[in-house]
Amino acid sequence: MSASLTGIAASKGIAIAKAFLLEEPELDVSKKTVDSAQDEITRFKEAVQESKHELQVIKEKTLQDMGEDQAEIFSAHLLVLEDPEIMDGVSSKITEESANAEYALSEVANMYVDMFENMDNEYMKERAADIRDVSKRVLMHLFGLENTSLATIDQEVVVIADDLTPSDTAQLNEYVRGFATDIGGRTSHSAIMARSMEIPAVVGTKEATDTINQDDLLIVDGLEGRVIVNPSDAEVQEYKEKLEQFNRQKEEWAKLVNEPTETEDGHTVELAANIGTPNDLDGVLANGAEGIGLYRTEFLYMGRNELPSEEEQFEAYKEVLERMQGKPVVIRTLDIGGDKELPYLDLPKEMNPFLGFRAIRLCLEKKDMFRTQLRALLRASSYGKLKIMFPMVATVEEVREAKAMLAEAKEELQGENIEVSDDIEVGIMVEIPSTAAAAEIFAKEVDFFSIGTNDLIQYTLAADRMSEKVAHLYQPYHPAILRLVKNVIDAAHKEGKWAGMCGEMAGEPAAVPLLLGLGLDEFSMSATSVLPARTQLRSLKKTDAEGLVEEAMKCATADEIAELVENRGFIIQ
Amino acid sequence: MSASLTGIAASKGIAIAKAFLLEEPELDVSKKTVDSAQDEITRFKEAVQESKHELQVIKEKTLQDMGEDQAEIFSAHLLVLEDPEIMDGVSSKITEESANAEYALSEVANMYVDMFENMDNEYMKERAADIRDVSKRVLMHLFGLENTSLATIDQEVVVIADDLTPSDTAQLNEYVRGFATDIGGRTSHSAIMARSMEIPAVVGTKEATDTINQDDLLIVDGLEGRVIVNPSDAEVQEYKEKLEQFNRQKEEWAKLVNEPTETEDGHTVELAANIGTPNDLDGVLANGAEGIGLYRTEFLYMGRNELPSEEEQFEAYKEVLERMQGKPVVIRTLDIGGDKELPYLDLPKEMNPFLGFRAIRLCLEKKDMFRTQLRALLRASSYGKLKIMFPMVATVEEVREAKAMLAEAKEELQGENIEVSDDIEVGIMVEIPSTAAAAEIFAKEVDFFSIGTNDLIQYTLAADRMSEKVAHLYQPYHPAILRLVKNVIDAAHKEGKWAGMCGEMAGEPAAVPLLLGLGLDEFSMSATSVLPARTQLRSLKKTDAEGLVEEAMKCATADEIAELVENRGFIIQ
Repeated sequence: MSASLTGIAASKGIAIAKAFLLEEPELDVSKKTVDSAQDEITRFKEAVQESKHELQVIKEKTLQDMGEDQAEIFSAHLLVLEDPEIMDGVSSKITEESANAEYALSEVANMYVDMFENMDNEYMKERAADIRDVSKRVLMHLFGLENTSLATIDQEVVVIADDLTPSDTAQLNEYVRGFATDIGGRTSHSAIMARSMEIPAVVGTKEATDTINQDDLLIVDGLEGRVIVNPSDAEVQEYKEKLEQFNRQKEEWAKLVNEPTETEDGHTVELAANIGTPNDLDGVLANGAEGIGLYRTEFLYMGRNELPSEEEQFEAYKEVLERMQGKPVVIRTLDIGGDKELPYLDLPKEMNPFLGFRAIRLCLEKKDMFRTQLRALLRASSYGKLKIMFPMVATVEEVREAKAMLAEAKEELQGENIEVSDDIEVGIMVEIPSTAAAAEIFAKEVDFFSIGTNDLIQYTLAADRMSEKVAHLYQPYHPAILRLVKNVIDAAHKEGKWAGMCGEMAGEPAAVPLLLGLGLDEFSMSATSVLPARTQLRSLKKTDAEGLVEEAMKCATADEIAELVENRGFIIQ
Repeated sequence: MSASLTGIAASKGIAIAKAFLLEEPELDVSKKTVDSAQDEITRFKEAVQESKHELQVIKEKTLQDMGEDQAEIFSAHLLVLEDPEIMDGVSSKITEESANAEYALSEVANMYVDMFENMDNEYMKERAADIRDVSKRVLMHLFGLENTSLATIDQEVVVIADDLTPSDTAQLNEYVRGFATDIGGRTSHSAIMARSMEIPAVVGTKEATDTINQDDLLIVDGLEGRVIVNPSDAEVQEYKEKLEQFNRQKEEWAKLVNEPTETEDGHTVELAANIGTPNDLDGVLANGAEGIGLYRTEFLYMGRNELPSEEEQFEAYKEVLERMQGKPVVIRTLDIGGDKELPYLDLPKEMNPFLGFRAIRLCLEKKDMFRTQLRALLRASSYGKLKIMFPMVATVEEVREAKAMLAEAKEELQGENIEVSDDIEVGIMVEIPSTAAAAEIFAKEVDFFSIGTNDLIQYTLAADRMSEKVAHLYQPYHPAILRLVKNVIDAAHKEGKWAGMCGEMAGEPAAVPLLLGLGLDEFSMSATSVLPARTQLRSLKKTDAEGLVEEAMKCATADEIAELVENRGFIIQ
């Protein structure tokens, strides 16, 4: 009999192969008293040194095999091993408690992991994963163990694990056809890796490692988020056909790389991609995005000990603008603070960080930091089609102040005879309800809006999207969200401006028809969603979508709206 | 030369008298190692016992002099001394660290004070003040000191202090004409006490104790929030006249106690009061409120070790309904959770409590607790004009679920042959942006709306109103707030329902004309604001106020709107 597990479809495709169960070594990190704290610190430092050498090797190998983007993860791991707070924390714990290194390390690491995991930011969550991964590596050295089982795989398998760390994924070879994990979500490292390696994956199954035995035959359905254990012949056949169909679909998508995003009734929208670093550009170009709708500049500021220089930022912005060859690039100024910490900025702890001191609020206070970024952006502007976007805008005063600083920086640069484009659009993220509700006022002050749905939904529903207890209230299709988005788009159009969306919602198949009907001009999403969205948009009529919106405006609940879109056949199967 | 300090006008009136500086004893609570932790615990327990006796005496005296309401504060203090978490915390600290009782107590007390002070709830903040006050009392006993200087005052004075604790205010006698403090806001204990004692007070002057010397002549202007130090004769004369004018104004106000709240052009609105306990009803009736717009039921659940019984709640609700003699009483179901903790409920710690698990979200999960409250409300309904209101509603599903539970409880009671009114209106607080933005949908599901501005502003601007760093973004007059409030009122009227407001804004002189112009039906505020608001409303024309709103809708910023109201002469001086 076959069994079936469901999880989150993390990377599209279908794999059929035997299970390879990744066993986690049992590491006993219970507290023991040591005679000499000094000797224990030495032992710890040796393990750290060994881990560093190992990481250097893995980093080189990854650079060869998978490119700069993946190799960077191991640079981040090396940084963890050089982080004085963490390293000194372990040494202090050994000294103060006469504790064994294993215990001290796992205590300190867990504290940081908990802290970073509770932050609403994919980069910070990755840092939690980094610390977990690195501390495991050091622990293995402290125990004198080796963990290279993944590297020994020499036949086609589906890897089953509680989670896959970057260190694990770096060991995956060409025999790995797919994987399934107990934990993780669509944005966890393993999910991102799977998409980048283009192997099917299902994450968050909760019980894969409990249910699946070594060598069970598995089907991993990364399209629907299902793992079938010991399938029948009929099931295997069915999925083989599904795989073929998927491959045909990919071929169809690929044909659209250079096609316009035009609806069946001739309405054109812009399909753009969100990026975090210039390294993401390969995927953007391969997937035919028509621009960058959101370049998050936070990454430049993270995993380091001081602010990035103007020069460093200029180089990054310039690279993105040049490689996009005149296509629009929306660069968002620093969105940090609140829950997203930069250790070197010494930000205040807040009771409700999501309602706190962050993004433009912070930049308008830390003016030197902000001015440096604005200068770097302006200098880069002559290398492409730059649009500057301010995050977390709540008041018109903030827009005016930020624009004044930008004008000042421009004048300054012109005084230094540095070329600055005369054609830079300046816009804002609409992610705070005040800005959405009073959009017609803001529309007079900016060149464009980009709706950030993640925060907009969270604030509008007053529901922390990281809190399990109120997760049911994080409703993208709430009637209020529909109304606010409509208000933003209408306000922009009334002033002859454009409105985009760079939240997760922009790429959701159920949201695309509603957003089209509402008149959204630009849809920005992860690069891999661009071609499916283009396919969907080309199959829709704007007039139909407008009719859909009219009906949706009458719905009382998010569920009714989602069902309506589904039932009216606006989602391609 | 006279000097002048500004602060927050906490209690209206003018006092002219010499300064009495309340000196704080310097208590050295630094850590010392004790030989016998057991002896130290005994010493601590003796100090606690002495404090308890003292508090019993003060409580009796306060009950005689000032009534039940004020005496309750000392019941709360006695509860602190019986709180096992705090008391055992001190004993453990003494044992574990061989520390002196003074140090252990101040450490533990400070921890709780910090915790409660960071909560956005006046009752919890009062608990912080309670703990600070009580721990000081115990410390004084540990040091063998007495602090009775206030009780010795035997000539007319103005008391100057860093802050006045309940223990301090309990000692104030008839010679105290007013006071000024360095810290505190309009809702701090000292401010509430001053209003209840009807003596002028200015709080939050920051530097009163630094600037003022013993026996300086002072004018405390509780109308404008000013303290004049060593005034000239001309200034004394000026303020004497101002005082007379104020007394005349009070007489004018008093004449309106039984008058309707009707504008100059014949439009009537309801002026209601907010209350926390039945004890607040004296003030409500004395100030001529036409109903209770918000009865916060949290107080019933606080300062105790278990949930209040149905009977206990029934008695409280019945008392309020009976004493209001058929005037409308809006009782809000429990708004607890998130930052407002009840120790016995064991609620989860959250990263962003303001965006978390609270109020109706919590009640719909803790169904037994909610059912008990609904039953108590329904049983009380036959004793007056009850309106039930659900807090923190974000979705229509929540309204439907809460209403279904109410209907179920009603059926249950009818099965038990208990009388339930057939004329109970059911409404919701509108304090979450989703509900304000989609108000026309909610208006079909409820009998009334009451706009809770404190939270609505905080969520709409995504600015924690307790966070200093973003305090400038807590803008009641933000164009978005105006639009959302308009949307709520219009939506209610379209469905033939009424809309009220029970946030602080409802009683603000600058807000009243805007709210009148927007068509607000019910204004609910603290009892002492009712008569001034009635005076203002009777001087206004609704048509003028509508014109004002029309102009305000064109303003781009909160400042512009506030200035507009001021400049158009809508605020009575």
